[in-house]
Amino acid sequence: MVVEVINTGTELLLGDILNTNFQDLSKELNEKGFNVLYQTTVGDNEERILEVLDIALKRADIVITTGGLGPTRGDITAEMVAKYLNIPLELDQLSLDKIKAFFAKKEINMTNNNIKQAMVPKGAHILKNIRGTAPGMVVKTLEGKLIILLPGPPSEMKSVSSLEMIPYLEKHCKQQGIIHSKVLHLRDMSESSVAAQLDDIIMGQTNPTIAIYARKGEIVIRITAKSTTLIEAELLISAMEQVVRERLNKFIFGVDDETLASALGSLLKKGKYTIAFAESCTGGLASSMLTDIPGSSNYLLGSVVSYSNMAKNKVINVRQETLEEYGAVSQQVACQMAEGVRSLFGTNIGVGITGIAGPEGGSDLKPLGLVYISVTNEKGTVWEKNIFNGSRSDNKLRSVMSAFSLVIDKLNEL
Amino acid sequence: MVVEVINTGTELLLGDILNTNFQDLSKELNEKGFNVLYQTTVGDNEERILEVLDIALKRADIVITTGGLGPTRGDITAEMVAKYLNIPLELDQLSLDKIKAFFAKKEINMTNNNIKQAMVPKGAHILKNIRGTAPGMVVKTLEGKLIILLPGPPSEMKSVSSLEMIPYLEKHCKQQGIIHSKVLHLRDMSESSVAAQLDDIIMGQTNPTIAIYARKGEIVIRITAKSTTLIEAELLISAMEQVVRERLNKFIFGVDDETLASALGSLLKKGKYTIAFAESCTGGLASSMLTDIPGSSNYLLGSVVSYSNMAKNKVINVRQETLEEYGAVSQQVACQMAEGVRSLFGTNIGVGITGIAGPEGGSDLKPLGLVYISVTNEKGTVWEKNIFNGSRSDNKLRSVMSAFSLVIDKLNEL
Repeated sequence: MVVEVINTGTELLLGDILNTNFQDLSKELNEKGFNVLYQTTVGDNEERILEVLDIALKRADIVITTGGLGPTRGDITAEMVAKYLNIPLELDQLSLDKIKAFFAKKEINMTNNNIKQAMVPKGAHILKNIRGTAPGMVVKTLEGKLIILLPGPPSEMKSVSSLEMIPYLEKHCKQQGIIHSKVLHLRDMSESSVAAQLDDIIMGQTNPTIAIYARKGEIVIRITAKSTTLIEAELLISAMEQVVRERLNKFIFGVDDETLASALGSLLKKGKYTIAFAESCTGGLASSMLTDIPGSSNYLLGSVVSYSNMAKNKVINVRQETLEEYGAVSQQVACQMAEGVRSLFGTNIGVGITGIAGPEGGSDLKPLGLVYISVTNEKGTVWEKNIFNGSRSDNKLRSVMSAFSLVIDKLNEL
Repeated sequence: MVVEVINTGTELLLGDILNTNFQDLSKELNEKGFNVLYQTTVGDNEERILEVLDIALKRADIVITTGGLGPTRGDITAEMVAKYLNIPLELDQLSLDKIKAFFAKKEINMTNNNIKQAMVPKGAHILKNIRGTAPGMVVKTLEGKLIILLPGPPSEMKSVSSLEMIPYLEKHCKQQGIIHSKVLHLRDMSESSVAAQLDDIIMGQTNPTIAIYARKGEIVIRITAKSTTLIEAELLISAMEQVVRERLNKFIFGVDDETLASALGSLLKKGKYTIAFAESCTGGLASSMLTDIPGSSNYLLGSVVSYSNMAKNKVINVRQETLEEYGAVSQQVACQMAEGVRSLFGTNIGVGITGIAGPEGGSDLKPLGLVYISVTNEKGTVWEKNIFNGSRSDNKLRSVMSAFSLVIDKLNEL
C-alpha cells in the first residue's frame, strides 16, 4: 500500500507557513505500516490540483490531501476531487448539523459560506472533525484506490487523522506487513566517519536497512525493518543493532526519542550527581536544554551566564590576572569558570564554556567558532578546544552538545 | 519562470525530520520574483528520484533539489541528475581542495567517502558552501532548463541558497514581475483577535493581500504585493501597512526578520541600558534567546539560572523567609529575584522569572503553567502573573516572550 500526501495551499508555496502537517501524518502512517513514498505541495489552483491528483493516483494506492476544505473561495479540494472522479457534490446533512451546532455553541452567527463545508463528493465516507467545522472525507475510485481529504489547520488535521482516518485505514486496508524502525543517537562522530564504519553493512543491506543522518548537532542511525509482524521486525532490528553496536557502541548515547540532554539527565539522576554551568558564548542555552528535561531540578542546582568579564570575575571568581593574560576565550578561563561555578553552587560537577559564537569578534589567533569547554569534579578538571564553523546559533548548539558530551565522558569515568 | 523544489531524503518521508528547507527556499525565491508552483518530497531511491526529476522538468523551468549531497551511500542526488541527463560525474578539484581544508582546519582526518562530495555532473557550475563540505551545483539541460542541487542540512542549504544560488538566478534568469512582502510582528495579541480586527480588510483584499498566523509565541501579519517593479510593490505594501497600523500599531514591535529578542536588544542598545536575568522555570532560555542577537554582550552583562531555592537565596539574595512564606513560585520571590540579580551584576534592569513549567509540580493553588515575571530598574519594580497551558517547552517560550514584552513596556515608559 503506497501512500502519497498532497498538501494544498498557496501559503505553503509562498513560504508563509511551515508545513508541519506532512511530518505529523507521515510519522503516524509509517508507524501503522503504511508506506509514504511521495509528498507534493500545490497551490489553490484548479488545473494544478487536478494535475497532481492524476500523478498521485498513478503511483499510489492511497492519496491523502490536506487543506482546501475551508469556507472561502480558495478552498477547492473537495470540488476538484469530485471533478476528477466525475461525481457530483452533495450536501451531507449530518455534517451541516454539526457545523450549525459548532457555531451555536460558540455563540457566533454562521455565515452561508460555511454550508460549502458540508458539500461532499457523492458516496464519500465522512471522517468527523471534533476540532473544527470541515469534516474529513474518504472517496473510493473505480480502481479501488482511496482519496482521503483532511482539513488544513494542524490541530484539526491531527485530530481527524488520529481519531478517524487511521482507524478507517486499519479496518479497510490490508497492510502488507509492518515497517518498524529504531533510532540510535551518536555523539562525537561525524556523518562521514559513521558512514565509513558501516560501509560494508550498508552495501550489503536488504532488510533491515540503515540510514545515517545529521540532526540538531548529533548523528543519527535509523534501522528500519519490514516484516509481517512487529515481533519479527523487532528481532531483525535487534540483530542489526547488535552489529552496529559492536563497532560504534561507545558513541551511542541513546535510542529513539532520547536526546543528548536527556541522556545526560539520566546519568546525573542515576548517580545522584548535581551540576552547574558557567556559560559565556552559549548564553544560557546549555542550562535551557538541560531544563527542557522534566525533573531536571533534581540535578541542575543553578547556572551563571557570565557574559561579561565583570561577571566572570565577580560572580564565579575567575581571576582578573587570568582574564588579562590569556583573554576571556582561553582554556585557563574555561577551567576557572567550571571550578568557580561548582564552588558557587556546591555541586558535584561544574562546567565552563567560553568562546566566540560569531559573526564578529574573531581574530587570526582566536578564530570565529573557537570554543573552550571545561568540566570539573572532585577528582580534577579537564578541558577541550573546538573550532566550529556554523552560524552564531549553530555554534552555540554545537558548543552545548560538546559540553554535554564531555560531562558524559567524565561521568562514565567515575 | 516556474520553479519546482524537490526535497530528497527518506528521513523526511518517515517523519523523522521536519522539512524547514522548503519554507526557507520558497520565501526567498518568491521575494526575488521566482514563482514556486510545486514541491515534491521523495526518498533516497534511484528510480523514484529519476521519476520526480522527469515530472518536475516537464512542468518547471528551474528545478531545485535539496539533500543527497552528503558522503554516504544514500546520498545519490548528483549521481541521479547526471544519470538523468546522461552526462558523467567528474572530480571538481577546487571543491576537493576546499573539503580537505575544511577537515584540516577542524583537525579531523578526512575519510575517503568525502571525495564523493567533490564529484559533480560534468560542466556543472559550482555554488560554494562555506558551512560544510558539499558544494551546491547548477546544471543546464539541453532545453536550457536549470537543475540546481543544494545540500540538505538547513544551515548549509540557507548559506548556499542566499549567497550563491539567488545571485546566480538573478544574473541568469529573467524574472517576470515581482512578489514582495513585508511582515509585521505583534505581541500581546491572539491570532483570532488580530483576524477580527482586520476582517473587513481581508474580505475585500485583492492586491496586496494579508495573511495572519501564529508563529513561535507571537502573531505575524504578512502583507504581500504583486507588481512589475519593486518600488511599486513597496508602495502598495506601505499603503496597506498604514491601514493596519491605524488599528494595531501599539501591538506591532517589529518588521520582517525582527524578533521580540532583537526588538528588545535594539531598545537596550539605543538607550545604553544593561540587563540581567534571574531565571527559574525558563532555565536559561531568556538569556539564550537574547544572546542569539549578535552584539548582545553590549547589554546583557550576565544572568543567573536560580533553579534551586539555595541558588535563589545564596546567589541572588532572595530572602529565606520569603521563600518559606510564599513559596518559590510567587510574586514576592519574582520581585526579589529581579532586584537581586540587578544588584549582583550592577545593571540598569533586572528581570526575575519563576513558575511551574510542567508537566509535574502543579497544585490547586499553584496550577501548572503559573508563571510570575518581575522587572525592576532604578524607578521601581513591577510584576505580572500568567497562566500558560502549553507543554513544558511551550510554557518556557511563552514565559520568555512575556518577560521580554514586560521589559519593553518598562523601557517605553522611560
